[in-house]
Amino acid sequence: MVGSSSGSGAKSKKAIVFVANGTEEMEATITIDVLRRAGIQVLALSVEAGGGPVTCSRNVRIVPDATLGDDSIKIATYDCAVIPGGAQGADTLSQNNQVKSILAEFHAQNKVVAAICAGSLAIKSAGIQGKVPQPLRLTSHPSVRDQLENDFVYKEDRVVVDSNLVTSRGPGTTFEFALALVRILVGEDKAREVAGPMMLNFDI
Amino acid sequence: MVGSSSGSGAKSKKAIVFVANGTEEMEATITIDVLRRAGIQVLALSVEAGGGPVTCSRNVRIVPDATLGDDSIKIATYDCAVIPGGAQGADTLSQNNQVKSILAEFHAQNKVVAAICAGSLAIKSAGIQGKVPQPLRLTSHPSVRDQLENDFVYKEDRVVVDSNLVTSRGPGTTFEFALALVRILVGEDKAREVAGPMMLNFDI
Repeated sequence: MVGSSSGSGAKSKKAIVFVANGTEEMEATITIDVLRRAGIQVLALSVEAGGGPVTCSRNVRIVPDATLGDDSIKIATYDCAVIPGGAQGADTLSQNNQVKSILAEFHAQNKVVAAICAGSLAIKSAGIQGKVPQPLRLTSHPSVRDQLENDFVYKEDRVVVDSNLVTSRGPGTTFEFALALVRILVGEDKAREVAGPMMLNFDI
Repeated sequence: MVGSSSGSGAKSKKAIVFVANGTEEMEATITIDVLRRAGIQVLALSVEAGGGPVTCSRNVRIVPDATLGDDSIKIATYDCAVIPGGAQGADTLSQNNQVKSILAEFHAQNKVVAAICAGSLAIKSAGIQGKVPQPLRLTSHPSVRDQLENDFVYKEDRVVVDSNLVTSRGPGTTFEFALALVRILVGEDKAREVAGPMMLNFDI
């Protein structure tokens, strides 16, 4: 029904936030929460077998919404895939073949691919590249810079947007990262609307 | 054994972070994570019956470490109690008689009592007051200011420390809030050490 939902009545956007044991809980939680405040449907998708809670990097246990491989999850209907950091979690996600193909496919389809902190390693392991001779620009946590700087144009900005690839640096940049995703997926007005009540210390 | 642990070999500090259905997940998670990065033992303590995960304000489900009333939890051994925001969660925590007496007792014993966002309402419901004629200074999310400004000296600072009472404003002030708790419980050096790798956008 035209006009029955917010904005133009367009279907709401959908994002997957991958989680694993060792995922940085602040990066996962801030991203999920801010995207949901913007009306984006977010699926916290675990890659761990068994479907139970994931134990994050500082032992916060988060119950995922689904587990990768669940038949009910139609990956192709999503507009965005996000890889949080946390050394162990990022390593698990970077090595997961299904995650790698989803990232590569989303990138090829010009869907939004996003990673923060050590999560940026998954961009490399998924084989995502810029068009030769123009390598993609990205950032990450400084601790994994040396694993990325030969394959990408490594930037030190807090959030780097290179067409549909969005990367960022750590827990303290996650609000900016999540709001950049809101801006791309829903628009500037929604990003401003969501930012206001959160009492951030920066203007967007 | 003197010198065997970090700092002076003192026992590590312990903090309770209360959670309930409707707790703001960013405020709870950032506080728990940052305090744990500082070596503080944190207990995510649910007030909901049944011991299952709490469903936070934006539907992130967090598994608590324990439930209030568990005999194994020795409340008196903790140094700090934290009330996160989220309208529904803060309301539940503010009305819980056990939570109210813990807050009042901790405050009377000069332990650290901390609240963020709508969580500051629990300070009032616990009957925590300054010494007449000097009311306590606090802050909160602006949305609940009108419920607090007649009983306290209401401030608009991002974090307000009035002796052992620490209050703050919302998801976007939680890093500052958590680092203020680290500073008080463990010290300035640890707060700086923890802040560095998180890639914050402010100096502490």
